[in-house]
Amino acid sequence: MSYEIAVIEGDGIGREVVPAAIDVLDAFDVDFEFVEAEAGDAVQEATGDPLPDETYDLAAEADATLFGAAGETAADVILPLREAVGSFVNVRPAKAYPGVDAVRPETDVVFLRENTEGVYAGHEDRLSEDLSTLTRVVTSSASRELAEYACEFVADGRGPAGDPDEGFTVAHKANVMRETDGRFREELFAVAEERGVDADEELMDAFATKLPLDPTQYGVVVCPNLAGDVLSDLAAGLVGGLGLLPSANVGHDNGLFEPVHGTAPDIAGEGVANPTAAILSAAMLLEFLGHVEEGQRVRDAVEGVLSDGPRTGDLGGDATTEAVAAAVVDRL
Amino acid sequence: MSYEIAVIEGDGIGREVVPAAIDVLDAFDVDFEFVEAEAGDAVQEATGDPLPDETYDLAAEADATLFGAAGETAADVILPLREAVGSFVNVRPAKAYPGVDAVRPETDVVFLRENTEGVYAGHEDRLSEDLSTLTRVVTSSASRELAEYACEFVADGRGPAGDPDEGFTVAHKANVMRETDGRFREELFAVAEERGVDADEELMDAFATKLPLDPTQYGVVVCPNLAGDVLSDLAAGLVGGLGLLPSANVGHDNGLFEPVHGTAPDIAGEGVANPTAAILSAAMLLEFLGHVEEGQRVRDAVEGVLSDGPRTGDLGGDATTEAVAAAVVDRL
Ligand SMILES: CC(C)[C@H](C(=O)O)[C@@H](O)C(=O)O
Ligand SMILES: CC(C)[C@H](C(=O)O)[C@@H](O)C(=O)O
Repeated sequence: MSYEIAVIEGDGIGREVVPAAIDVLDAFDVDFEFVEAEAGDAVQEATGDPLPDETYDLAAEADATLFGAAGETAADVILPLREAVGSFVNVRPAKAYPGVDAVRPETDVVFLRENTEGVYAGHEDRLSEDLSTLTRVVTSSASRELAEYACEFVADGRGPAGDPDEGFTVAHKANVMRETDGRFREELFAVAEERGVDADEELMDAFATKLPLDPTQYGVVVCPNLAGDVLSDLAAGLVGGLGLLPSANVGHDNGLFEPVHGTAPDIAGEGVANPTAAILSAAMLLEFLGHVEEGQRVRDAVEGVLSDGPRTGDLGGDATTEAVAAAVVDRL
Repeated sequence: MSYEIAVIEGDGIGREVVPAAIDVLDAFDVDFEFVEAEAGDAVQEATGDPLPDETYDLAAEADATLFGAAGETAADVILPLREAVGSFVNVRPAKAYPGVDAVRPETDVVFLRENTEGVYAGHEDRLSEDLSTLTRVVTSSASRELAEYACEFVADGRGPAGDPDEGFTVAHKANVMRETDGRFREELFAVAEERGVDADEELMDAFATKLPLDPTQYGVVVCPNLAGDVLSDLAAGLVGGLGLLPSANVGHDNGLFEPVHGTAPDIAGEGVANPTAAILSAAMLLEFLGHVEEGQRVRDAVEGVLSDGPRTGDLGGDATTEAVAAAVVDRL
């Protein structure tokens, strides 16, 4: 079986870390066909369009897409691409890695972020000189789809504790957004009960206080779209920054895999960017395609390299992007 | 001149920390008339209404209101009360105090949170079996009012650095909420420019990553309503929890002052709750009424007590609420 993988390096260090991730994918005896396409600031400057139709269509028709980063045009690239692959959940693990400075090294949480609606549904109006509105959307169907995924995720032992009994925590603001987040939390709890999965909840503001105080309280955290954006980025701050964190935009038969970091213009072009987040995103891609064991091997190799292998400048070393990728490949 | 102060203890430890704060206010040669009223779970249970009209009217007509905490009914109490006093900005300082365990002891930020609109405007609809919506509201008038306040706040040296040059940071999500947060940030920057105040900006998700990594980057942070709720609670987590943090809901000629903490049902009724947040809220009340020097004296006394005075159980001591209040009064 052969997989068509759309490869969108984008801008800045995206052009360096994505090739490193592909080196890692290439090390496996899996038949990948990589097809490159453009998106981001550079192509916007050249053509006026940050996400050409060919790129959108390629991602939509591929088996999976590996994305690097985009600069100023990030929202215009990443939001349509999530839609192109039909992603309904954004999976964002945040854990502290060995040898990496972290405010809270005990952190080990996975966010399951709703990936289609909330304030991201995109309906805004300028109603008068003084007044603008945004229509925040929550449907039972999207909430239940996320809930089914969360239940399976937990049941398969994919949470940080690896234990189907760990259940999940719903983080929301239903005390204020009673109808919309009320619907969201109700569907999450209803599906969890049908599936026999433990669920508890936390108001998103209380979660923001309690996560830094004691991150070990949480494992799998299920959130509406913007809550997931902010709370997963908060967790990233606790583990030492966005530098190492991967993410998966999962759809039914397609997915988009991307490091959480940006384009890092200060170091772009020098070949010294840390490829870890992109490589871990490739591990999530492998898992998504059913190559679970291969995904785990990548993760183990990455942890080994972080413990006692070459390090890029962000981690106090002076290795190149390629050297780190090669060290990961060596350990597979 | 005499001030009428509405006193709403509410539930749980609200009934203990508010009297402690009043002991401190009483120590000054300022003519306060304290008028008590009920709100919260207890009065809801007794009467079916968590916020009786008399309480709303009292707060609306007072010179200022001191509020404790409410349990399950918190949103039904606090949101209407903010409206009753005509509050347009919620001032939330988060700093680490001497001798208090903090994840990030260097934290010293003040959030200025828009207090009337955003998702709190309260328009939600159940449009079908599957679909609910919420209308998020942003107006130029509210944004400019907040901006004027922020500029004055900074110009008066009330930011953590005490330096009019420190300016403020706008935290928003205008890359996604382009029309609504776009309007918000535009008005903030426009007023800052008119007033000659420095302003920069941060996406709210990036802010959530960067604050734990290095809180010293930020001073005065201006936010839409929900962003301010979540980001200020995050800062609370970095300074060791909600226990010590005060807040001021400021209006034009009225204000509502409340500790950020809740009702703490586990220790309520024992007289051992930490009154610091309520006492610091009373300091903000003094300042609001123009007694700036008295407010500062309270703050200094509180810091002194936290350094080497009696401590309540949450800080590892065994002092009572009253003993801490008495120690603060002693140092005034
Ligand atoms: C670039 C932006 C639109 C995006 C988001 O808000 O989802 C980013 O912050 C992310 O989390 O991937
Ligand atoms: C109780 C709740 C409605 C309130 C809010 O969201 O504003 C609280 O979290 C706060 O920050 O004072």
